[in-house]
This record gives sequence, structure tokens and C-alpha cells, in this order.
Amino acid sequence: MIIINGQQGNSIHVMDRSFMYGDGVFRTMRMRDGRVNCWLGQYRKLEADCQALDFLCPARSTLEQEIALLAREIPDCVVKIVVSRGEGGRGYGVPDSVSPNRVVLTSPLPVYPAHFWHEGVKLHVCEMRMCHQPRLAGIKHLNRLENVLARMEWSDPDTAEGLMLDVEGWVVEGTMANIFMRQGNTLLTPDLSACGVAGLQRERILAFAPQCDLVAEVSNLSLKALLQAEEVFLCNSVIGVWPVREIGVHAIPLGPTAVLMQRLLENETA
Amino acid sequence: MIIINGQQGNSIHVMDRSFMYGDGVFRTMRMRDGRVNCWLGQYRKLEADCQALDFLCPARSTLEQEIALLAREIPDCVVKIVVSRGEGGRGYGVPDSVSPNRVVLTSPLPVYPAHFWHEGVKLHVCEMRMCHQPRLAGIKHLNRLENVLARMEWSDPDTAEGLMLDVEGWVVEGTMANIFMRQGNTLLTPDLSACGVAGLQRERILAFAPQCDLVAEVSNLSLKALLQAEEVFLCNSVIGVWPVREIGVHAIPLGPTAVLMQRLLENETA
Repeated sequence: MIIINGQQGNSIHVMDRSFMYGDGVFRTMRMRDGRVNCWLGQYRKLEADCQALDFLCPARSTLEQEIALLAREIPDCVVKIVVSRGEGGRGYGVPDSVSPNRVVLTSPLPVYPAHFWHEGVKLHVCEMRMCHQPRLAGIKHLNRLENVLARMEWSDPDTAEGLMLDVEGWVVEGTMANIFMRQGNTLLTPDLSACGVAGLQRERILAFAPQCDLVAEVSNLSLKALLQAEEVFLCNSVIGVWPVREIGVHAIPLGPTAVLMQRLLENETA
Repeated sequence: MIIINGQQGNSIHVMDRSFMYGDGVFRTMRMRDGRVNCWLGQYRKLEADCQALDFLCPARSTLEQEIALLAREIPDCVVKIVVSRGEGGRGYGVPDSVSPNRVVLTSPLPVYPAHFWHEGVKLHVCEMRMCHQPRLAGIKHLNRLENVLARMEWSDPDTAEGLMLDVEGWVVEGTMANIFMRQGNTLLTPDLSACGVAGLQRERILAFAPQCDLVAEVSNLSLKALLQAEEVFLCNSVIGVWPVREIGVHAIPLGPTAVLMQRLLENETA
């Protein structure tokens, strides 16, 4: 089911700037029993991302009404919100009268093997590198060719995700998930001030660290350090947390923090 | 007028990957008396860009038929072709059955003051920097947020274009045009192997250099060197060539090469 600016539909004008330039932002969320997990946090991120690109985010109440319509139809699914800057303009220039378009849609929950959560997943190390663009870093914007090209590098269904490095070789994230490693009581996730998407679950995990007796650290992370970690895990709003058991040809030990974070992320719904 | 996959229309499915991820390429061309200037070169670039993103370019004859329909309606205009990888996929993954969508549309010729061609234009030096992404450099793809944000930096109609530097401070191009400078008999344009769009008119100007007794050079170009040039000009398929008379607060002399290239680009139509 797709709702476009409040109306059921399935298409958008080709002059929409997201079609022409990727000029918009999005969020991908988990709906459970008709409620979007962490909705307030999701909305806050959407609003911040719209602001970062300098256009107005749709009102929370508007999106809530539209999500409620979807929830009646499919209470357990993935919900995606796309907000585009709007239509038109001569070339890249934004017309004075532009008004954001919003698309809210559902898709079935992706089916992954249960062992991805219990025994961990295998990562492919992507050849595709992420560029350093501080102005866009952290934002979940619609310029996602790097992720698309990285995702095209493997087709083996046993490989759950791709690990992306930046142009300098630092670890950034997965193609669709953020990444954490633990060494002793230090929980480390890459700094995303030059590239990457700063996901909501990443933020929540950083906030949960103290109650798990972990010291959260956000810094540069080398592939070498990642391969020597005591444990590694991925997170996003659809999968929750997947432990990582293999990166390329390197085995990674499983550990308790991934399991702990799986439970903590599940329990929090607002 | 808009033709989508051969049919007149104005909208595209929201699951189109260009709307979702900017997963496509485009060309912007000048139609004069019902003919697209340099059509064979334009098609060759479109085909190369599709190939660089690993999807099939629509057949030349198909696009030619669609352009002919537009030409009957509006023989003098701007023609834009957008080719998207197609619809759907779970997340970034490309479905096996994906098939490219093509959009061919016209827009009125932009109205610029005649003195832009004769007396030169003023450039704003953009704060927005282009990132180094060798995998995407040169391609006219749909991930254009850098250009959009750069274009939002000025609104003064007397400023015709923005000059974009890369993250290291090297000159790359305009937001919508390539750039050249002449010093003595050397005609220099920035190397675009790390970022930027390698336009067709840039390629033609490089090829015209020898017959103008100029030595073409493609290399790194500093802002300092650009400001000391004997002449500077911009090019693209819609404007042809604009001499540059001012960059930020710096005056730039006008010279003979811009005028020569204006004529050479106009004369060639294939």
C-alpha cells in the first residue's frame, strides 16, 4: 500500500526532484502490531535530515494519520517514508514555490534465516568505497548509488551484508546497517562525520552502553582492528541486531553484547 | 511534453530506483529545428554512463523515435533523457527481472541575457565542495545533491553560475557546466577522474584545440591559477560557451578562445 501526499496511489511526477536529482530523504522502519517502533525518534531523525537539506518536514500528525491507514491494512511490515523537496525548477535551481512531496509505503518484512540472529552473519568486504562528503554525512538522503553499487558486488544468499570502507580505507558501515565492535568493555562504532548514515538504532545502542557496563566510543576504525575484535555486530531498524561471525575469510567470535543489544532494542518502542 | 517508455505521460512508479536511490543517468541536450545537436555523441555518452552503472541503455532507434515525436511538437527546446535502472528490489539489491525505465521530455529554452555570451558571466565560488568518488566520477548520474546544494547558495540573477571546488580545493566545474582556462597557447580543463561530470561539449572543445593552435591539457587546476588565467570560459550543451568575466571579486580578462569555441560548437551538429 502506498500513500502519496495523503492519497492512495503509486506514482510521482517525473519532475519530482527526487526522481531527477535524488533531492530528498527517507526512513525505513519496522511496524509491529500496527505501531512503528521508535516512532518519535524516527520522526526526529526525518525532521533533522529535511532540515539538513533545507526543506520543511511534513507535520508529525500528518504522517501519523497516513501510517495509521497503512497499519489497518498490514499491521506487521516495513514502513518507508520518502520526503522529496518537491517538483520542478530550471536545472538544479529550486523554484520559489516548491512544496515537499511525501510518500509513505509498506513492504513485507524481509525473510532472513533465523540463524542470522543466533549464529551471526557473514560479511563481504565491498570494493566500492564511500567518499568523504561532510556536508551530506550522516543524512539518510536519496543519493544512494554508492550503496547500490556496493550491494551489486555479491549474490551469494549466505552473505547477509556488505562491509563498506571509505576512500581512505576506514570502516564506515554496512550497505544497509551500522556496525559496532567490542574490545573489552569498549563499544566502538565508526565516526560518521565524513560519510555514512547515522541510523537511529546506532544512536540507541550508544545510549544503552553505560547500562551494559560498556564505554561507548565513536572514532576511526580500521579493518585490522575490526578483524581482531572480541565481537562485531550490525544494527538497523528492520533487522534489530545481527552478530557478525565472518568478515571476508576471517572468523569473528560471537559475544554477549550483541545478544544484550538485541533485547534492549526490542524492548524500547518509543 | 513527456514520453515515458514510449507513451505520453507524466508520472513514474514510486518504486522506480531513480526516485528511491537516484539509480540512473541523464542527458540534457539542445534541440534546434527538430534536431538534437550532436545526437550521436550524446547517445554514445548515455550508453557509456548506463554501462558504467551496469544496466542496459535503451536502443538508439527507440530514443530517436521518441525524440521525433517531441520535435514535431516543439522543434526548439531543451530535451532531457533520463534512464533509470528500473523498478523495485528489496532494499538496495537489484531484482533479477529489472528493466530500465526511460523518460524523454522537453522544456523551454532557458532565457539568459545576451550579454552572458558577449560580455561574459559572473561566477559565485561555492562553499559546497565535491567529494572524491572515482567510481562515479565523470558519469552524469542522478545523485546530484552536491549540485543542488551548491546551486542554493546564490539567488542574485546577475550571477550566472557557481564554481565548484573539490574537497581538496581543486577547481572541478560549474554546477551545470564544465570549465576551461587559457594561458598562452595552453587550454586547460580540470581532470575529472575523482569527481565531476565529463560533458560532451568539454570533450569537443578538447578535440578542437589543435585546429585553434592550442595545446589541450587535462590536469589539476588551482583556484589561484584560474584567477590568473588569460581567459576562462564555461561550456555545456544548452548554453554552448559563456566567457567568464568575474569569479567572486576577481575580474577575469575576456579573450579570443571563448568566441572561437562558441562558433566551433555551433557549427558541429553531429
